[in-house]
Amino acid sequence: MGSNNLRQLNIDNINPHVREAKYAVPGELAVRSEEYRALLAAGSTKLPFKQVISANIGNPQQLDQKPLTFFRQVLSILENPALLEKSDVLVNQLDYKPDVLERAKRLLAAVGSVGAYSASNGAPAIRQSIADFLERRDGFPADQANIYLSAGASSGVNTLLHVICANDKSGILVPIPQYPLYTASLSVLNAACVPYLLDEHRNWGTSLETIKAAREKAKAEGINVRAIVIINPGNPTGASLPEEDIRAVIEYASQERLVILADEVYQTNVFVGEFISFKRMLRQMQQEQPGKFDQVELASLHSVSKGMVGECGHRGGYFELVGFDPEVQAEIYKFVSIMLCAPVIGQCLVELMVNPPREGEPSYELYTKEYNAIFNGLRERATALHKAFEQMEGVECGAPQGSMYLFPTIKLPPRACEAAAAEGRTPDEFYCMRLLEATGVCVVPGSGFGQKEGTLHFRTTFLAPGTEWVGSIVKFHNDFMNQYR
Amino acid sequence: MGSNNLRQLNIDNINPHVREAKYAVPGELAVRSEEYRALLAAGSTKLPFKQVISANIGNPQQLDQKPLTFFRQVLSILENPALLEKSDVLVNQLDYKPDVLERAKRLLAAVGSVGAYSASNGAPAIRQSIADFLERRDGFPADQANIYLSAGASSGVNTLLHVICANDKSGILVPIPQYPLYTASLSVLNAACVPYLLDEHRNWGTSLETIKAAREKAKAEGINVRAIVIINPGNPTGASLPEEDIRAVIEYASQERLVILADEVYQTNVFVGEFISFKRMLRQMQQEQPGKFDQVELASLHSVSKGMVGECGHRGGYFELVGFDPEVQAEIYKFVSIMLCAPVIGQCLVELMVNPPREGEPSYELYTKEYNAIFNGLRERATALHKAFEQMEGVECGAPQGSMYLFPTIKLPPRACEAAAAEGRTPDEFYCMRLLEATGVCVVPGSGFGQKEGTLHFRTTFLAPGTEWVGSIVKFHNDFMNQYR
Repeated sequence: MGSNNLRQLNIDNINPHVREAKYAVPGELAVRSEEYRALLAAGSTKLPFKQVISANIGNPQQLDQKPLTFFRQVLSILENPALLEKSDVLVNQLDYKPDVLERAKRLLAAVGSVGAYSASNGAPAIRQSIADFLERRDGFPADQANIYLSAGASSGVNTLLHVICANDKSGILVPIPQYPLYTASLSVLNAACVPYLLDEHRNWGTSLETIKAAREKAKAEGINVRAIVIINPGNPTGASLPEEDIRAVIEYASQERLVILADEVYQTNVFVGEFISFKRMLRQMQQEQPGKFDQVELASLHSVSKGMVGECGHRGGYFELVGFDPEVQAEIYKFVSIMLCAPVIGQCLVELMVNPPREGEPSYELYTKEYNAIFNGLRERATALHKAFEQMEGVECGAPQGSMYLFPTIKLPPRACEAAAAEGRTPDEFYCMRLLEATGVCVVPGSGFGQKEGTLHFRTTFLAPGTEWVGSIVKFHNDFMNQYR
Repeated sequence: MGSNNLRQLNIDNINPHVREAKYAVPGELAVRSEEYRALLAAGSTKLPFKQVISANIGNPQQLDQKPLTFFRQVLSILENPALLEKSDVLVNQLDYKPDVLERAKRLLAAVGSVGAYSASNGAPAIRQSIADFLERRDGFPADQANIYLSAGASSGVNTLLHVICANDKSGILVPIPQYPLYTASLSVLNAACVPYLLDEHRNWGTSLETIKAAREKAKAEGINVRAIVIINPGNPTGASLPEEDIRAVIEYASQERLVILADEVYQTNVFVGEFISFKRMLRQMQQEQPGKFDQVELASLHSVSKGMVGECGHRGGYFELVGFDPEVQAEIYKFVSIMLCAPVIGQCLVELMVNPPREGEPSYELYTKEYNAIFNGLRERATALHKAFEQMEGVECGAPQGSMYLFPTIKLPPRACEAAAAEGRTPDEFYCMRLLEATGVCVVPGSGFGQKEGTLHFRTTFLAPGTEWVGSIVKFHNDFMNQYR
């Protein structure tokens, strides 16, 4: 129509910071995997595999993971409170236990209707329930006034980065490899991402020397480094940080006055040792050395998206602020008010997550059974994958520790790297593309998360059901190595 | 603790643009009204009223408005699909009609689980259903690829402003009075709000002369005016724009290459004439004068929050793009991807809103009855309020046209203005505070939305049940005028 140049907006005059943001919007791999899925659904027999395995995204309920019955029963009543008028039918014919009805009544009393706006920071009763959970989890008090419900943890991160980043010289320490939410959000905000490498040789732990060096380098470039992001358990690394790493980060943040942004959405996905929250460790250090850590500012994020809950489509989450200036908190409150409030049904799901059925309550047995089955299934598949990686030439991978991911290193022969270059791909992209073509297994190349120069990785979830696909990766890898040796 | 000055963040060094944003976070009036409510709940008999009427926020289900049964029954199944295994119980004992079950099945097939992420722009089948609705509504084709599901319309506005505003010289024409989402979002983005006054004497319609003058003035100040916001039906004005105003805006936007942001969330709240969408009018003008309006860029927003649906707590909404450059659309897609996707249960509610039961279907009768009762209730209360305003000295208010609000002008005696100044309040704030104290009715002073210099208003919703409170406003007003005459 020749009207393109008459438009107000084009790629060269929109917000340059939105344009600069890198976010692997269904990349070529994901698009290709969906094409394969469509072909298979249409009955094609031309592909060398019978199903597509989406090991590329942490989207549990898209794969095998079933929602927890107690949660969904309560939510069904919140959506249709008229059901409470037929409580006998619910109990006698639909397997709703009395504690389901009771919880639904309590939540309805707290929010009125899930169709009404709540307070901008979330319904007060839900904030209180989260505070109670934090006290139980950490053994230290928590105040509902410091808790903010959000539409998933992503929205919480967006809020916090918006407030912290004052201008283009504001810098945030971000782990590499990382979940791209952080780099993308910082691009949009036109603030500086200050990357620090995680230590693959220490199971992707934090290295204080590396963090220090990254901060010093940024400082020398005129960047005002204001905060440090920690993802624990890690995405994409699957690491679960040991106490010494957490202590060292808090110590350093205290000394250099860095806000700690603790992304703890995988806190229940821990297979080795126990999850240690930054809040608990901070409070413990404050007790051990009175006065020394009083000024530490910590924001800790959690979500219904991961763990055994796996309800990412509900966009529920919260963050707790510790040690923040009340005036700054008032600005955070104002900021979240502009978007009115987090989805109320998602807020209710957060409440269910932090306050599940307890021993002795009618829904406890089923809840525990379902919860443990998911946990054990994840651990088994993680172990199977890890074993497979151990058999694979040139592949190294630490034992599964937590979250939903493994992030193995792959060493590819020079001829594979040349073939990748000839296709205009990085070697890890090339490898993942061949893997998809041969097996139907879709994983994400390490370059999507950032990796140390000269190293190659891929991230795979261990959410997909069965272990047959794991065998197919091993076979592919052998063939690939033989082809390019 | 003396540790304040050791913190990284304080009010003076956080993001100044967040700080500058004005958003009436529960202002003094709302806080006071909640205090009164708590006093009454605790049995206090010291107040001159028996209940607090929250006429300050468009939060239908916090007040009288009941959710529509069909919608909530479907949502209850989406939350607990196990209910479908007992469809006989649902139908025979819980009054679920067969079309409820069928719709739930269809939506579950479309999204898999409401606990799973959808595509970033929304589930494809839901986008298609919205496109079908737009075709029925406007009589012109709509393409699902141009539709983006969002967490309420607010989140859609946030996305669009983020992409359109390239730097601090980017300006957006915003109606005054306006819903403060626009000014607040523009502050956060550090872009320029270019205010244009609505014409109170023409029932708060748009005046092209005023818009032109506002744009010219901004241009002279070095602002690159890129878009115009239209809220139709209006918030806070309650206006429903006539065809001639819409045509004039499109004509002007075409001529000056302005993106049109049509906030049409109140499109079903129309009491006078019919709602005319910008999309329909644009397509009609393109037919009438082929080629002339091809380059117009229009984004139209809708939401489940208002209308007879009133489900604001669910944070469901969408926007449709018309005439946007595909490269710009790709950036919009990337931007929404960073936050993953809109709440999936909210997306399903959007689908229900745009595709409600049809004549002949089992749920149609009840749906229509409920829908009409809400519509008629709103109209009756709007009329009662308007009649009351007509009796009040110094108050002028156009007949109710649409949305959920009336926005009367009030002329206050000089002594009232002096008394306000003595309290450090604007006269409209002073009036609203006295109204709350005397009657328990909470409304919002016009200064919260912007008003022509030298004029005073307040905004009231007509959502609150009953009409007794309307009488109490009349009585208060007489007393107030007598006191300050």
